[in-house]
Amino acid sequence: MIATTMDTTTMSGKDVRMASRSGEFAQPTSGAAPDIVQTNVAILPKDLAFEFLVFCQRNPKPCPVIEVLEAGQTEAVLSAPGSDIRSDVPQYRVYRHGELVDEPSDISDYWRGDLVTFLLGCSFTFEHALIRNGVHLPYYGTDKNVAMYKTNIMTAAAGPFGGPMVVTHRWVPRERVVRAVQATSRFPAVHGAPVHIGDPAEIGIEDLSKPDFGDAWDPQSDDDVSMFWACGVTPQAVAMASKPELMITHSPGYMFVTDMHDEDLAVM
Amino acid sequence: MIATTMDTTTMSGKDVRMASRSGEFAQPTSGAAPDIVQTNVAILPKDLAFEFLVFCQRNPKPCPVIEVLEAGQTEAVLSAPGSDIRSDVPQYRVYRHGELVDEPSDISDYWRGDLVTFLLGCSFTFEHALIRNGVHLPYYGTDKNVAMYKTNIMTAAAGPFGGPMVVTHRWVPRERVVRAVQATSRFPAVHGAPVHIGDPAEIGIEDLSKPDFGDAWDPQSDDDVSMFWACGVTPQAVAMASKPELMITHSPGYMFVTDMHDEDLAVM
Repeated sequence: MIATTMDTTTMSGKDVRMASRSGEFAQPTSGAAPDIVQTNVAILPKDLAFEFLVFCQRNPKPCPVIEVLEAGQTEAVLSAPGSDIRSDVPQYRVYRHGELVDEPSDISDYWRGDLVTFLLGCSFTFEHALIRNGVHLPYYGTDKNVAMYKTNIMTAAAGPFGGPMVVTHRWVPRERVVRAVQATSRFPAVHGAPVHIGDPAEIGIEDLSKPDFGDAWDPQSDDDVSMFWACGVTPQAVAMASKPELMITHSPGYMFVTDMHDEDLAVM
Repeated sequence: MIATTMDTTTMSGKDVRMASRSGEFAQPTSGAAPDIVQTNVAILPKDLAFEFLVFCQRNPKPCPVIEVLEAGQTEAVLSAPGSDIRSDVPQYRVYRHGELVDEPSDISDYWRGDLVTFLLGCSFTFEHALIRNGVHLPYYGTDKNVAMYKTNIMTAAAGPFGGPMVVTHRWVPRERVVRAVQATSRFPAVHGAPVHIGDPAEIGIEDLSKPDFGDAWDPQSDDDVSMFWACGVTPQAVAMASKPELMITHSPGYMFVTDMHDEDLAVM
């Protein structure tokens, strides 16, 4: 199949999954199937699954669990009926003992009956909420990324899993700060309320111009305030650091698209 | 030790736990340590723990997880530092293959290195919120219980765990219904928003005067509306139905008292 860039804004979640499965869809999913919940993907052997799920339970802000597929299960029955986790993500990453060994568009060759899939909330949902509430996100819908930083906020460990929380940073106009807290608090299943507002040094970030992942952004005015939210890179970084024998994830930006609507995740 | 009835309203969570440990405290915990989070307790062998935790993740309204203690861990490090789950609940129930075999005040004799403890949210937190918002709960602070019913709402199964959702029922004055939705929506970690408002028959409840658990209650006026919330009895009933080789729970009403404040669980 030849991968072509398509107009993705009119696609449903199922459209994106089926086109990923056939190979037609081979691009990042940002902006595709708007207002539909997209997720991070982490696939681990069952012997690590309980402790990884406990890690997520202990750290719901960076690790919001949307669905868990039990060992060998390939369909996300609840969030994406009819899906196949082996083929419906546009691009995967395969790691052995923490080392990247492959970046395929299908993982059928790697699949095993003991693999457990975790679908974890991604920030697209809450970014829609920020935009609707008047917060400008300059990277949104571009090929640039939000700025991400390791902090001195430690996650609560579970088994072999533990380490620092990774956060995303966004500049928010002072008069929109309260609104940004409110708008994201409605979505605890996708990182929820911010973890910090103001001086980056207070959470161990020395230089905003040097993010650990993604791209640095300048404020739009002197009145912009730094706001930090827990980031879904945290569980992946933590799992990787434990060097599991096999771990499969989505490629950054190439998410699993469900059938759930953003508003399904709102608590109020 | 001799169990005496004490004034429990001035006790802290730690006070209740230490007095339970020494044997001084041997009564239901309703009203003890007000505004402190109390939890249901379910202790299962590790080979069932992953699927039970997935069951809870799939059914967050009836099964809100406050903390998981890994295999052999006896201290609730996050919600009740210094606690010992083997002694700090005033009364336990021990089940073998689904049959009640003992109701001790200490489970040290039953403890094993492969036991995983689940602390699950209990309705006391959200009942405080209802009372503060003008909803009268006639059983509150008495020796009577809320009315509980099995419904035709099926939980999402995981491994051997599945079955109908159990709900609690409360009469709410018509002009307080919206407020009751709002007040409980703030607490998704302790059952959250109601699952049904109005006609009991629509969720398979034939006769409100015949609850499956607890006590039936008459409305206070013709203007009262039936409201139903997911109930923490659900995960216990579901686990029991799978007849695990060993399962230990709290005795109904004799909860584990943490150090967390109700407001720590509020999302907004």
